[in-house]
Amino acid sequence: MTAVSVPSATTSFDLGPARALSCRECGNETPLAPEYACYECFGPLEVAYDFGRVRREDIESGPQSIWRYRSLLPVPTNVASHPNLEPGNTRLIEADRLAKALGLRKVWVKDDTGNPTHSFKDRVVGVALAAARELGFKVLACPSTGNLANAVAAAATRAGWQSVVLVPSSLEQAKILMTAVYDGALITIDGNYDDVNRVAQELAAENEDWAFVNVNVRPYYAEGSKTLGFEVAEQLGWRLPEQIVVPIASGSQLTKVDKAFRELGSLDLVEATPYKVFGAQATGCAPVATAFKAGHDVITPVRPDTIARSLAIGVPADGPYALDSVRRTGGTIEDVSDEEVVEGIRLLARTEGIFAETAGGVTVATAKKLVETGQLDPDAETVLLITGDGLKTLDAVSHKVGPKANVPPSAEAVINALKG
Amino acid sequence: MTAVSVPSATTSFDLGPARALSCRECGNETPLAPEYACYECFGPLEVAYDFGRVRREDIESGPQSIWRYRSLLPVPTNVASHPNLEPGNTRLIEADRLAKALGLRKVWVKDDTGNPTHSFKDRVVGVALAAARELGFKVLACPSTGNLANAVAAAATRAGWQSVVLVPSSLEQAKILMTAVYDGALITIDGNYDDVNRVAQELAAENEDWAFVNVNVRPYYAEGSKTLGFEVAEQLGWRLPEQIVVPIASGSQLTKVDKAFRELGSLDLVEATPYKVFGAQATGCAPVATAFKAGHDVITPVRPDTIARSLAIGVPADGPYALDSVRRTGGTIEDVSDEEVVEGIRLLARTEGIFAETAGGVTVATAKKLVETGQLDPDAETVLLITGDGLKTLDAVSHKVGPKANVPPSAEAVINALKG
Repeated sequence: MTAVSVPSATTSFDLGPARALSCRECGNETPLAPEYACYECFGPLEVAYDFGRVRREDIESGPQSIWRYRSLLPVPTNVASHPNLEPGNTRLIEADRLAKALGLRKVWVKDDTGNPTHSFKDRVVGVALAAARELGFKVLACPSTGNLANAVAAAATRAGWQSVVLVPSSLEQAKILMTAVYDGALITIDGNYDDVNRVAQELAAENEDWAFVNVNVRPYYAEGSKTLGFEVAEQLGWRLPEQIVVPIASGSQLTKVDKAFRELGSLDLVEATPYKVFGAQATGCAPVATAFKAGHDVITPVRPDTIARSLAIGVPADGPYALDSVRRTGGTIEDVSDEEVVEGIRLLARTEGIFAETAGGVTVATAKKLVETGQLDPDAETVLLITGDGLKTLDAVSHKVGPKANVPPSAEAVINALKG
Repeated sequence: MTAVSVPSATTSFDLGPARALSCRECGNETPLAPEYACYECFGPLEVAYDFGRVRREDIESGPQSIWRYRSLLPVPTNVASHPNLEPGNTRLIEADRLAKALGLRKVWVKDDTGNPTHSFKDRVVGVALAAARELGFKVLACPSTGNLANAVAAAATRAGWQSVVLVPSSLEQAKILMTAVYDGALITIDGNYDDVNRVAQELAAENEDWAFVNVNVRPYYAEGSKTLGFEVAEQLGWRLPEQIVVPIASGSQLTKVDKAFRELGSLDLVEATPYKVFGAQATGCAPVATAFKAGHDVITPVRPDTIARSLAIGVPADGPYALDSVRRTGGTIEDVSDEEVVEGIRLLARTEGIFAETAGGVTVATAKKLVETGQLDPDAETVLLITGDGLKTLDAVSHKVGPKANVPPSAEAVINALKG
């Protein structure tokens, strides 16, 4: 390949421990910049670090948000001093009733519905906005299946930034209203997520001060998912779980949780004990599960048809890397029907009092299937990632659950209804 | 008054620092028991304490939930070891953009939408369930305007308890589904909240092992709201704010935030600096504001007619005590129209990226009105309590906000829409 011109290695960006951008395909490194594709081979870039010494005590004495992990993220040292949504620090719940129902010895549920806009997207957007500010962008933007739209619009307005948010016009009403209320520019597009994503790629190329968090700022954005892994390990008392089940949309989250566990081990923040990463998809959009089961390295795109819209990415950018993580750690990937997704939502709700969106139903139902098919070890400690909120996907359960009875205002009527 | 028989002063209940139940009217004390009305005068009982020495360090090293304050609550010492929703530890956000919009020097927003079921009710239900377990109850129940229904049904199922939840049949669909999904007994009742509450009173009298959290366990339940005050003070760096605006439904929350601030001062956990408590109501259900403005001590019941349904209590049990707190601290009480409520929701969303339910709109709009009428000191540091989530009251904004445009899938169409 002919050498191409590479920008100067010296930059004035303060992105904490981030050293460079590194190509996930050819390994070529380029200086930190608002770039996302390799100059050499057009492969996707990710952040490479020179971590200094990072101690548990320094993290523990940090803010009650993802910024306690700033020494492991591509963000300026003073990141917490800018107005931001202060995401993270969500509950890790010991889920004994769910464990019993699933036939697992020990289950923990990471409940990311407690984030500011009630999904894990607040984590990645927080990192993307911090990096985008440092890189000189002026507008925060995204294509989204909904949760990211909420997170981008909210984070932008709190920071005093303009936002441009693109979503499929078929999106759930709750996600549309929860984006529009923050008063950014919300545009609905007639098409599915992959159409919306294509439009965003074009716009990112044409508008150089727009940070499409999951397009041209993607290398930085994606690192935010590591904080899910960091928090799980810290909340377990600075150790890694034996098994973790992660939903797959683009596949990025799964690879970054894996990366987080490896970084913690290599920095001696935890003992580098073995762990297995399992992937969860909806059958109506299961390109990564299909490739896994077929033993392929390449993902064949699909046209999504599932109620799990936040996972409905038919062309998953990080699918191949998710396959790598799962295979390297000895996990597997499964997919579940929409009916199983709804049952998964209901099982989590009635055992642990956590109301997840459809993606959470995918995770729980997949865990159930993985146990039933002998893929999850029932005696190994298992973490389930619940990354979004049931209030955003009410349609999934609205025909399945409801009041036991409607009665006139008398105690007798209530007692009779309860007996019935 | 003729002496009535009083239960023995010795009990085996472990309710932490709680010493007795004390009548808010006559001051008579009775031993800790599943009681809520005074034997002497039928006045409401509240929890009295013998606090030991409580140190900041002990609290700071406690759990990341309301249980870090267990030495100030009527709960067993081992409360955190029982499965529970682990509520609390929500964000206190420095809200400079909102402050500027309101014309206040310094504003903090306490964002209780981050709780497990996305309202402050998880706090009070957590305390109620812990006390109810110790007091021997077997079923968790409530009449509710919605948020409490979510919290009771979720907390009960996580603890492995049965629940009975009574709500008005007119309730928002989101709140009904979010209760039903936890699989307890949800009964809708044809009537308003005050009708539902009356039915609950009857049922509580007839079913002695049912803990109606806000009826027969109310003295314990109500103490959970103190944790809002405790958290605000701790998050400010162990000090009290100068002004705080609190929404009023029954009035209980306001009185307990006041109680929390006083307890912190008397225990030397903070300096006992002066603070003013302000109350916020919707004009369509403003019995406490009306009494305040008229200089009355007695609350005249009203029939609620407001979109702020979670505040729509026409017969507010703690109204008189809320009046006392506000008058003693030098605050005031205001009410705002439903239109102002919607504008309050939108103002908070577009300045700080926080999407509140109608009750939050009441708080923000009231703060605005209090500034405009010179009742809030613009130079004093002000805390606003946002106690519930916008996803539960989408109807309030659904006709006011929406996408800027719907376009075909092309970059050009998006750019044209943004110019338009």
